[in-house]
Amino acid sequence: MNKVNIGLIGLGTVGTGVVKTLRRFSNIEIKKIAVKSLNKKRNIENLDESLLTTDAFSIVNDKDIEIVVEVIGGVNPAFELIKTAILNKKHIVTANKELLAKHGEELFKLAGENNVVIMYEAAVGGGIPIIMPVKMTLGANRIDKIAAILNGTTNYILTKMDEENADYKEVLQEAQKLGYAETDPTGDVEGYDAAYKIATLATIAFKKRVKIQNIYREGITKISAKDMAYAKQLGYKIKLIALAKIDGNNADVRVHPMLVKSTHTLAHINGVTNAVLLEGEPVGQIILSGPGAGEFPTASSVVGDIVAICSELHKTDSMLPMMRCTHSENAVPVLISETTNKYYMLLSVSNTPGVIGTIGTICGKHNINLASLLQKESEEGNGKTAEVVVVTAKCLEADVQSAIQELSSSGCINEVINLIRVMD
Amino acid sequence: MNKVNIGLIGLGTVGTGVVKTLRRFSNIEIKKIAVKSLNKKRNIENLDESLLTTDAFSIVNDKDIEIVVEVIGGVNPAFELIKTAILNKKHIVTANKELLAKHGEELFKLAGENNVVIMYEAAVGGGIPIIMPVKMTLGANRIDKIAAILNGTTNYILTKMDEENADYKEVLQEAQKLGYAETDPTGDVEGYDAAYKIATLATIAFKKRVKIQNIYREGITKISAKDMAYAKQLGYKIKLIALAKIDGNNADVRVHPMLVKSTHTLAHINGVTNAVLLEGEPVGQIILSGPGAGEFPTASSVVGDIVAICSELHKTDSMLPMMRCTHSENAVPVLISETTNKYYMLLSVSNTPGVIGTIGTICGKHNINLASLLQKESEEGNGKTAEVVVVTAKCLEADVQSAIQELSSSGCINEVINLIRVMD
Repeated sequence: MNKVNIGLIGLGTVGTGVVKTLRRFSNIEIKKIAVKSLNKKRNIENLDESLLTTDAFSIVNDKDIEIVVEVIGGVNPAFELIKTAILNKKHIVTANKELLAKHGEELFKLAGENNVVIMYEAAVGGGIPIIMPVKMTLGANRIDKIAAILNGTTNYILTKMDEENADYKEVLQEAQKLGYAETDPTGDVEGYDAAYKIATLATIAFKKRVKIQNIYREGITKISAKDMAYAKQLGYKIKLIALAKIDGNNADVRVHPMLVKSTHTLAHINGVTNAVLLEGEPVGQIILSGPGAGEFPTASSVVGDIVAICSELHKTDSMLPMMRCTHSENAVPVLISETTNKYYMLLSVSNTPGVIGTIGTICGKHNINLASLLQKESEEGNGKTAEVVVVTAKCLEADVQSAIQELSSSGCINEVINLIRVMD
Repeated sequence: MNKVNIGLIGLGTVGTGVVKTLRRFSNIEIKKIAVKSLNKKRNIENLDESLLTTDAFSIVNDKDIEIVVEVIGGVNPAFELIKTAILNKKHIVTANKELLAKHGEELFKLAGENNVVIMYEAAVGGGIPIIMPVKMTLGANRIDKIAAILNGTTNYILTKMDEENADYKEVLQEAQKLGYAETDPTGDVEGYDAAYKIATLATIAFKKRVKIQNIYREGITKISAKDMAYAKQLGYKIKLIALAKIDGNNADVRVHPMLVKSTHTLAHINGVTNAVLLEGEPVGQIILSGPGAGEFPTASSVVGDIVAICSELHKTDSMLPMMRCTHSENAVPVLISETTNKYYMLLSVSNTPGVIGTIGTICGKHNINLASLLQKESEEGNGKTAEVVVVTAKCLEADVQSAIQELSSSGCINEVINLIRVMD
């Protein structure tokens, strides 16, 4: 078999894993590796340093390279590099969730026009097989729901907060020390990373394009040790959930923390592990879980994609149609205010008679039925304030928001401390 | 696109699901359906009864049929039918785990010679995407361990026994009434079904053929409500586990009940759900779970296979090499006596001084360290007998078997009631 030349853009954590893993494939040769700095010490035995270049465009313009593997992440310069590579008829393997979420539509169209494929198994769920199973093995299904834990950093933080009854900031600092969270953790803790991933996953699962700007997003920074403890008392764990549901053309896609029943499989997904729950017809419910990030899990998916393309290269016929991603029809976004959910509400109230009645009355006025209620004297308020936890039945988000406004301005409620949605 | 003609052999539960699911694919036409009886009432709206035939060979010999879908199960007549179909250059989709486990090697060889493929996503894990992910998405990995719950009937029975503290026979009868267990439940409860499935799965994961006759097998018929209760007390659930490990060429593949730590994901797989845990390098640990059987989940995988073949039909080049299964090198079987495990042992003993000492001495003599020990006065023995539960550290199966022999013949031990392996 002839050797296939590939070019690798990026030699960080994932790139290093890719180089190491590719060594077991004698038919695949890395011809060039684009790096930021030629002098950085690399954790790779016997790395041929003559392969390194700081000029990534020399890779996408190299006539001998058939597959470009991009593992630098971010939009710039990845977008320009991949576009140039596609125009030069190179197949693409990428782990870049942000780029796919923001410019996937344009890239897949360009790839189709140039008869090349873009493979991106590593861009959603790291090492978990999810893109190919959804496109092929589950290809006979109408998938109408996804509920997933797609960000390892936030799941690590929430797990630690739960296990150690610790507050968010404390655990974040620990995670940063261990390298599980970045110095600027915004991309993870505010839910951007999970939103990029669910945009791509929902698009292929629903066969309709879900645009990143239509995804409602809330992070985990407001979750406190107190919320964790109340959730536990009520039989729940708190997880950052990427949720996607479709009904006809209407797609409700969002990322926010949720209370998940402690008997639910997703409640047991701990630490940096990711998991994807899919509901399809005819298959029913499928759950795929595994390591969502890291050098080797991500390399597993990247190299799996490289091998899949190699097996199809130099054939007279075109690539497997299923390797393409050509869903140009857009899903119609459902606004968060139009969704119905159950809610957990943590209120700080005056410890006076009638306050529970006021809460009940205001909620009732806004069509909100209460499923459970818990009152506890506050530790801080010298007996003058109490905390009330309310869990509602299913109700409309818009109603909940107006109820919160009215609760906040009612005399006996000091503060609506937190509002977290509850998984069915 | 031209219509693809397929022939369906079998119109039982799975076949019915396949017919219904195929209706959403306008490019696929069922030309003939082989049934046992033309007069049986079918649960399919607007079924064209002119498609039905009792002559299955008329399907495998039909020149217009390109894909034969076999969902009758069992070796005869499926083996002859599929062989004939392959010789007639037809692609095969099958859900037949028994046939693949017993005659897969011959069938895959014949398919290779005739340039057709055999697809069998539904034969392991029902609706769970597992075959394609292992072959493709995880294709860059060396998978060296599988631990799986592959039989829905036994998992349903064990779950019910655990939840209701009920005995095996009682729950089996209930499962038979509900249609979750067959009138003759042997294939499920004695572990044959799980053994067929792990034979096929281990073969593709290890890329070495694992022969069904080399798989050690124990069923669940000896598990009692008492074992369940003791296991729970020790922090375990009891599950029927299909286990496969490879070290070099040596494959340790077996099906037997195991105590699984109640914090382990597999301990939370309940009812008829199946789950497969894979450990690979570089990916790490992946868990795939979902419905392991039933009309629609199985149809999801069968139709997924049909669609995958259709997308490759009529191309100049041959099929995706990865669709093939050509592992002709045999794995070297590891005998159960050569394996090391932790063990749970339930003993009935005389309630006399020194009996614990005797157990400890005999175990020690056979190189068995005890990890925990629990003694309880027996309810039946009028205070004269007691039950002792022993959990061992890791030790050699051969040592455990000889220790059991010596324990059984020692005066103070009435009976070794049960021996169940414990998952690490």
